[in-house]
Amino acid sequence: MSTFACKMLSNLRKKEIISLKQKKYRQRYRQFVVEGEKSVLELCQSSYSIQEILLTQTQFDRIGDRLPSAKVLIISNKDSEQLSTLETSPGIMAVSNFKESTIENVVFKNKFTLMLDSISDPGNLGTIIRIADWYGIENVICSPNCVDLYNPKTIASTMGSFTRINCIYEELEDVLKNCKVTSYACVMNGELIQTITKPKEGIIIIGNEAIGIRSEIEKLATSKITIPKIGKAESLNAAIATAIVCYSFVVK
Amino acid sequence: MSTFACKMLSNLRKKEIISLKQKKYRQRYRQFVVEGEKSVLELCQSSYSIQEILLTQTQFDRIGDRLPSAKVLIISNKDSEQLSTLETSPGIMAVSNFKESTIENVVFKNKFTLMLDSISDPGNLGTIIRIADWYGIENVICSPNCVDLYNPKTIASTMGSFTRINCIYEELEDVLKNCKVTSYACVMNGELIQTITKPKEGIIIIGNEAIGIRSEIEKLATSKITIPKIGKAESLNAAIATAIVCYSFVVK
Repeated sequence: MSTFACKMLSNLRKKEIISLKQKKYRQRYRQFVVEGEKSVLELCQSSYSIQEILLTQTQFDRIGDRLPSAKVLIISNKDSEQLSTLETSPGIMAVSNFKESTIENVVFKNKFTLMLDSISDPGNLGTIIRIADWYGIENVICSPNCVDLYNPKTIASTMGSFTRINCIYEELEDVLKNCKVTSYACVMNGELIQTITKPKEGIIIIGNEAIGIRSEIEKLATSKITIPKIGKAESLNAAIATAIVCYSFVVK
Repeated sequence: MSTFACKMLSNLRKKEIISLKQKKYRQRYRQFVVEGEKSVLELCQSSYSIQEILLTQTQFDRIGDRLPSAKVLIISNKDSEQLSTLETSPGIMAVSNFKESTIENVVFKNKFTLMLDSISDPGNLGTIIRIADWYGIENVICSPNCVDLYNPKTIASTMGSFTRINCIYEELEDVLKNCKVTSYACVMNGELIQTITKPKEGIIIIGNEAIGIRSEIEKLATSKITIPKIGKAESLNAAIATAIVCYSFVVK
């Protein structure tokens, strides 16, 4: 393993990897960065195609034997800090190719699907993907203006769940017009979720953190639902709302 | 109003306010900073005692008439950026005195109370306080090693809800020994929440993001509960878990 591990990180490649912090370069190279032991190990178990795994000698000594040796490159602590998007580098990162998920492969019948309209906070998108994974929801359909799945903060907050969830960017109108299942728009003045008979399938639509679901999308939803409120907070965080609706619908 | 608005921000006071970004100075002065229009307006409606409200001329022209004029100071855009804890200053902030909440005033009977063991992420604490406010839970009891309520990130993520919730730092063992209501520890191997008859009162205990509830605290809980999992994510974010349990217990 040590021969492979001795491959050097070229300055050119180092610059490319650093550039992946920006969406424009992620899209140009169709690659993204995954940081931290848990996420990198989950990536290795997934169907993502890994470009390289970069880690410090300390991390290599600890978990090198659990990594695909042909992909491994040992880097200096200094490089590790420079490449990291975090304040303190965990000393292990992977560069992966994008995985292309398309709407054509999505089945809506007999399962729940999440639909996100204009989610702008990367932490929220990541947490929502983690919730989808917890509840066995395979597909998360994002409007094209949602924050990027491959944003480092999104990937980090999925805690590895991005490897198991299909995140598909698509015009929501088209999807809603063709899905042939009930869609539930989470709004402020809908039917209270605890009064709804638990459905067996459908699309749960969650809107932007500040302005909610766009009216053109809400109009296409077959049903409007609301999370009951007892106290005085004006709203709930988008990921929190997703979790409550998923629990209420998915758990029998 | 304009005479009051012409008060100057001294360099000494400016330094003091900047120092409030650090916990040690917040504790020394027993003051903290609140940023953004929504949070500052909610602060003005609350029982917190405000020291001063600092805002740019632009913000003053927009919402000055909704603020207590005797507290208002106009600051330059440059000062606003320097004082802000955010990347881009919203141009309005308030300095408030601490509000002392003590355990003696907490009633446990006929209501739900949240108890947080070693929560370390300020965003999680803030989001949990917002959830408490949504569900009409008045009291959040934090172990002394929980992140600081007055951390700017905590305050920001409460979205103003910190003004309505009592956040009390206390040794959890003492509280659990004296509370005389059922306590529910949220763990990985407890009773599934959807199978529990909705209680009318009790303490919901949520543990640290990485290690959960400390065993000495878990031992004192009367009941162990678990959020059902259908998919493959290893765990849920602490705030997400709080929201699901609150929904399941509090909403009839």
